[in-house]
Amino acid sequence: MAVYTRLGAEEMAGIIAAFEVGTLTSAKGIAEGVSNSNWLIETEQAGTARRFILTMFESRTEIADLPFFLDLLDHLAAHGAPVARTMHDCEGASHRLHRTPEGDKALALIEFLPGVSVSEPTPEQARAVGGALAQIHLAAADFPASRENSLALPAWQQLLKDCGREALESIHPELGRIVERELALLAAEWPADLPRGVIHADLFPDNVLMLGDKVTGLIDFYFACTDLFAYDVAVTHAAWCFSSDGARFDPALSRALLEGYAAVRPLSEVECAALPLLARGAAMRFLATRAYDWLNTPADALVTPKDPMAFARRLDFYANPENAGVFA
Amino acid sequence: MAVYTRLGAEEMAGIIAAFEVGTLTSAKGIAEGVSNSNWLIETEQAGTARRFILTMFESRTEIADLPFFLDLLDHLAAHGAPVARTMHDCEGASHRLHRTPEGDKALALIEFLPGVSVSEPTPEQARAVGGALAQIHLAAADFPASRENSLALPAWQQLLKDCGREALESIHPELGRIVERELALLAAEWPADLPRGVIHADLFPDNVLMLGDKVTGLIDFYFACTDLFAYDVAVTHAAWCFSSDGARFDPALSRALLEGYAAVRPLSEVECAALPLLARGAAMRFLATRAYDWLNTPADALVTPKDPMAFARRLDFYANPENAGVFA
Repeated sequence: MAVYTRLGAEEMAGIIAAFEVGTLTSAKGIAEGVSNSNWLIETEQAGTARRFILTMFESRTEIADLPFFLDLLDHLAAHGAPVARTMHDCEGASHRLHRTPEGDKALALIEFLPGVSVSEPTPEQARAVGGALAQIHLAAADFPASRENSLALPAWQQLLKDCGREALESIHPELGRIVERELALLAAEWPADLPRGVIHADLFPDNVLMLGDKVTGLIDFYFACTDLFAYDVAVTHAAWCFSSDGARFDPALSRALLEGYAAVRPLSEVECAALPLLARGAAMRFLATRAYDWLNTPADALVTPKDPMAFARRLDFYANPENAGVFA
Repeated sequence: MAVYTRLGAEEMAGIIAAFEVGTLTSAKGIAEGVSNSNWLIETEQAGTARRFILTMFESRTEIADLPFFLDLLDHLAAHGAPVARTMHDCEGASHRLHRTPEGDKALALIEFLPGVSVSEPTPEQARAVGGALAQIHLAAADFPASRENSLALPAWQQLLKDCGREALESIHPELGRIVERELALLAAEWPADLPRGVIHADLFPDNVLMLGDKVTGLIDFYFACTDLFAYDVAVTHAAWCFSSDGARFDPALSRALLEGYAAVRPLSEVECAALPLLARGAAMRFLATRAYDWLNTPADALVTPKDPMAFARRLDFYANPENAGVFA
């Protein structure tokens, strides 16, 4: 939640000019996204006000991955999914390099979409989100590019090994033991042969814009990759069906989300059967990055690290045989 | 540069509904202002998109002062000054209290104005800013309320006394001596009988929105108060006519700013004669708050304190008899 790079108005006007979307009339740094800097941009073109999000990719996004992310937005939007298009510059490029005191950084100008991110979703909203997730899974079927999931099981193992058992136990006395047990299970039983394709992989409420019960935009595709569709369902389930601290599970949200997904893309029996394990994986994925950030974020950082226990609680929920019926 | 209070979408929709400006369609926290939280809000009303800035006043703004600030905006806008109007709520109030976990906070919804804040002003831009400053001085002539300047000479004396000579010398070995000398001079010679009225008191480039050479908005009136017009000219001079570190003075910007002001509201001879001393006061005002913040901001604060030496250098410039011709 920060703007990491300061851009003067004159510099900003030059950047926007290269995209040929009219004259810059407003630019406000927005407190959105944790890894990149974002501005809400307004231009005037032929008497019409137009709005965009300008994103400057900071250190966490690999520039080599940008064509995948940005071409994907265009592909999904062209297939009718609620996704913002990328503006291409005067040379047809989807992103540009911009010289800053800390070196060249990539910039992309993306269509503005209306909508707000809900913090207390209703079942009808969860249903719509399930449907939108299925829609992008289907819409990406003929997307030609692929990208390995850099935050899959091997990354969780590495991150948690880097944390160290002692440090995990400093977060919670049980955490070292739980992580060891669950990582062993996930490594032994992770399914390899389920339907796969492009997934969002991070569809938290913050990354969904809604107006009422309607999804107006899925945003922040910077973890998108090629992986199991059902794993994306599990990630979205972990993201939407609990109180943010993970302490309360909401069965009505869960049912609505899964029904909304299945109404657009029915899950096969094997996918359904894999969901309980995939959900443990989804909880482990966020536990791993949060625990790592929790232990490695300097105290004076602009961004406050999020509590890893929120996902340890989800993991505990998914691992409990009493909750096996959730995905039935 | 931060959003201090998190507002969920549902909470935000409720807040906006009370202002009767249509249905909330977008809300983005913006990285603007150092003391308050701000959101760029979009609503739809009768098929038309409308935009506003929602400000939540955090601890630095006294709620008792809000009627002064907000009524002033309406007054200036009604008199044709480039200032955003305040939206009044369903009960006619210019601000509302909102319950948060840290206690009740005041909220105001203010018209959105186009424009960007320049960081490398041209003389023509400085001229326009001088004119806009004079325009608000004239437009506020019949504004009925008044507010004491809480950051006038007694406050500088107190803040710098609270810093302590030793701490000031830890910033720069000469700073203790300079502050003592200048405060004594300002106390002895500060003029009492110059024309006075409502002043902005903080008209830095960040607080001016421009499109090309035109001023589209003066913003952030939360230091506005009743004081000497010529002191406001001196503050604006200190804010616009130097490189931000205070090391380089730009005579062309200075001439254009003063001419732009005088073209709308000519300065009297006594005001002109007082400007060199008022400018030393203006530099001292920002030196005082910056030195205090520099010495008292915790290392993990969201906002990085600004370098007090940037205004020690301006003070040095204004105190140098060789530069007496600047205001001639």
